[in-house]
Amino acid sequence: MATIHDVAALAGVSVSSVSNVLNGRTEKLGAQTFARVQAAIGELNYRPNRAARQLKTGHTPMLGLLVPSTANPMYGQLALKIEAVAQERYGYRLLLANTHRDKQHEARMFEDLLSFGVQAVIVVSSLNDERHLEDAVSRGLTVVSYDRSTAPAEGSQVDHVSPDNFKAGYIAADHLIAHGHTRLAFLVPGGKTVSRADKIAGFIERTTLAGLQGSSEVVQGQVMETFGDSELADLGFAMASQIKAMRPMPTGIVTVNDMLAIGLMSGLHQAGLRVPEDVSVVGMDGLSIAAFTNPGLTSVSMPLTEMADAMVQRAVDRSREPGQLPVNFIFEPVLVERQSVARPVNLQRD
Amino acid sequence: MATIHDVAALAGVSVSSVSNVLNGRTEKLGAQTFARVQAAIGELNYRPNRAARQLKTGHTPMLGLLVPSTANPMYGQLALKIEAVAQERYGYRLLLANTHRDKQHEARMFEDLLSFGVQAVIVVSSLNDERHLEDAVSRGLTVVSYDRSTAPAEGSQVDHVSPDNFKAGYIAADHLIAHGHTRLAFLVPGGKTVSRADKIAGFIERTTLAGLQGSSEVVQGQVMETFGDSELADLGFAMASQIKAMRPMPTGIVTVNDMLAIGLMSGLHQAGLRVPEDVSVVGMDGLSIAAFTNPGLTSVSMPLTEMADAMVQRAVDRSREPGQLPVNFIFEPVLVERQSVARPVNLQRD
Repeated sequence: MATIHDVAALAGVSVSSVSNVLNGRTEKLGAQTFARVQAAIGELNYRPNRAARQLKTGHTPMLGLLVPSTANPMYGQLALKIEAVAQERYGYRLLLANTHRDKQHEARMFEDLLSFGVQAVIVVSSLNDERHLEDAVSRGLTVVSYDRSTAPAEGSQVDHVSPDNFKAGYIAADHLIAHGHTRLAFLVPGGKTVSRADKIAGFIERTTLAGLQGSSEVVQGQVMETFGDSELADLGFAMASQIKAMRPMPTGIVTVNDMLAIGLMSGLHQAGLRVPEDVSVVGMDGLSIAAFTNPGLTSVSMPLTEMADAMVQRAVDRSREPGQLPVNFIFEPVLVERQSVARPVNLQRD
Repeated sequence: MATIHDVAALAGVSVSSVSNVLNGRTEKLGAQTFARVQAAIGELNYRPNRAARQLKTGHTPMLGLLVPSTANPMYGQLALKIEAVAQERYGYRLLLANTHRDKQHEARMFEDLLSFGVQAVIVVSSLNDERHLEDAVSRGLTVVSYDRSTAPAEGSQVDHVSPDNFKAGYIAADHLIAHGHTRLAFLVPGGKTVSRADKIAGFIERTTLAGLQGSSEVVQGQVMETFGDSELADLGFAMASQIKAMRPMPTGIVTVNDMLAIGLMSGLHQAGLRVPEDVSVVGMDGLSIAAFTNPGLTSVSMPLTEMADAMVQRAVDRSREPGQLPVNFIFEPVLVERQSVARPVNLQRD
């Protein structure tokens, strides 16, 4: 059976070059070296036995990633960025699961990761209850939790990386108020998460400061059972009729994420209401597709690249040096103005 | 150190129930059984050693998935469906990589999969040259290739699952011709893939049948280096000015995928052209978000659920029974009519 030394000899390169190819650390290798190593591996049918190595080192160069659903482009974009950092910077591969924010789903994935010898996982679900995450830590996983910006529980052993969701809700409301809107609504799907609660709190803080607490409302999707993270645009579309039926009808709407806003704009249009002439809409996430809706969607953008960097770095570093204390990173959201917000034309008092 | 028997005894269930929990086969387990097993695993801090088991069986219950980019919702949706089938039906987890249709990227992932003990991979890239896929087969991987509907090379050992891309191009052109369009264009990014070539061939077949070969054109994105699979909407937006500069300008446009169409509609709108009054647009993929653009995007929809089923089934079955011959599955695309196609108003002859 061929060894790594046989491969290096046949390719005419050092063992460490072969090792670099095998571990995906190919940035510094020339294309020719890479090709020669690949050819030698093929010729000798060499296969490094990572299962054996794992038994020795207890280490599998894989990172777990749990997201609600990659069908939401927010998590598709996030997965792309996390995978790029994990692979290019650390040589880690990504084990992916769509969990639909289900605790049992998440707990099962933790079991599988542990049994595969995977040491670190990034969890995107923002659930109120993180006890199953703490359990996973106590069993040996390094856990990074995304989108949970409220101070974590006392003594938490989980790293937290999140945008400032309170601020996101605040600046979305602020933008509408600055354009003269006095009847505001905040749209949210059914199902509680910490990030949603924080965004709502920021929205309420800003509307209350403006004295608009009596004319601003949090509107929850009525059909919570049917619509998960894969069908947020459908939910937004359906919620347009809830908005239209409100008396007085709000003229400025904030949605808890961009997909909800995209569906809502479509539903409003279908109902004969124009955006932004009749109703202004502000989304949150900063999806790239939000630049191409008609009208372009004004949105509170989350710094995905920076957050992906921080999450992968914490996951890998802490799994390698478990002595480090967990941290709580908060990133600043930024308002991206497009065409979905205007001054309310019809300022009648109801 | 605790064994599976200790877990079963503490939970008061059979060893096979514990095994079912460990392997994700939880459909038939009651919630109570599941909870008791989880509690016993936690109490005993039991960890099944899959690395050791892999050495015995040579089998890791993971499936590799290579996609161009999960930032394109087409592949985010596909990954969701593939993961659901792999996990729920077979208890497999998904190892994901974004490869940007780069052969070297793909080959490196194959090496990693082999070294992890993974036996099967689904590859989404539709490249003309599949020799690196055949190499991977000869080294022991079961490979399923997506979106390459042309008959594979003689003696190929790779399974192929694809929509009928020729037909997709044909029915998109047919739909525009049926609405009276005589000046057609087919928009495609830079970079050749088999699926793109097949769609173009179908488009040309239909326009030629209608005698429109002189007034129909394939338009390739000029800025090929800049725009990858993550930025297709940006490319579509930029291509709107190419369309507007054409003399005569086409009135009916087919795009090779939905993200390109979404960007194009935004760019046309920006350039003062209305969809569908001035220009009609037909996309391809059947993204769920295409229902919520303004206007809603008429698109040739690909049967993602059925194709995901077929791919996972082939990958798992053939890796378990390597004697089976590879197959070439073709699925029928379907036109989904929305609001982006109308009769051309301005029927002047140029």
